[in-house]
Amino acid sequence: MKKSCPQRKEVRREFQVRPRLYHGGDIAIGPGKADLLEAVRKAGSIAAAAESMGMSYMRAWMLIRTMNACFKAPLVQTKRGGAERGTAILTKTGQTILGLYRRIETQSLKATQASQRQLSEQLR
Amino acid sequence: MKKSCPQRKEVRREFQVRPRLYHGGDIAIGPGKADLLEAVRKAGSIAAAAESMGMSYMRAWMLIRTMNACFKAPLVQTKRGGAERGTAILTKTGQTILGLYRRIETQSLKATQASQRQLSEQLR
Repeated sequence: MKKSCPQRKEVRREFQVRPRLYHGGDIAIGPGKADLLEAVRKAGSIAAAAESMGMSYMRAWMLIRTMNACFKAPLVQTKRGGAERGTAILTKTGQTILGLYRRIETQSLKATQASQRQLSEQLR
Repeated sequence: MKKSCPQRKEVRREFQVRPRLYHGGDIAIGPGKADLLEAVRKAGSIAAAAESMGMSYMRAWMLIRTMNACFKAPLVQTKRGGAERGTAILTKTGQTILGLYRRIETQSLKATQASQRQLSEQLR
């Protein structure tokens, strides 16, 4: 059972925690949705955010629809101008959720440093 | 942008952290691989472990091949008997890796309890 896993010392050894919050059968927020919120905040529209993530507009729109439906208030608010695809902003709730999500990532990474090191030491 | 997200109070609100360790382009270990290790330990064969997870034998075999190649020592050891699909055990390294992975999950969940609560409070 051998495979050509890279053996060079400078190989990528990234450790991630990928928090996920379920609400019923839906993922209310997870790593992809958090990145999408950040992309919307930066890009100012769903179309541009989707493009920056190499994602279809429809997929981005559906992820945002799920988030908006899972939380008490919408996370992303769209404004349709004359154009078919208008601008979009993170609401106050969206900013709060994104901030909490990033904080959870940071807290997890910090709390698990010793175990991460022990795990990485076992890598080839 | 509304969607039929369940609104009952008793709706599932599970929070997970899903640690992932990369080694080069491969995921050396993540939630699926950790569950597979646990299934092998319980079932005693790759075939039975795969079946218990609703996964094809080939997929389970490939995930194990990746793990075995990413770490210094194999995590799963197979023994072929007379039958085509023999028994499989978790090696000492396999047990160590699985233990560290579960510890990281526990540590992450514990360290983020307050933020998790704040996040969940925003759910509908």
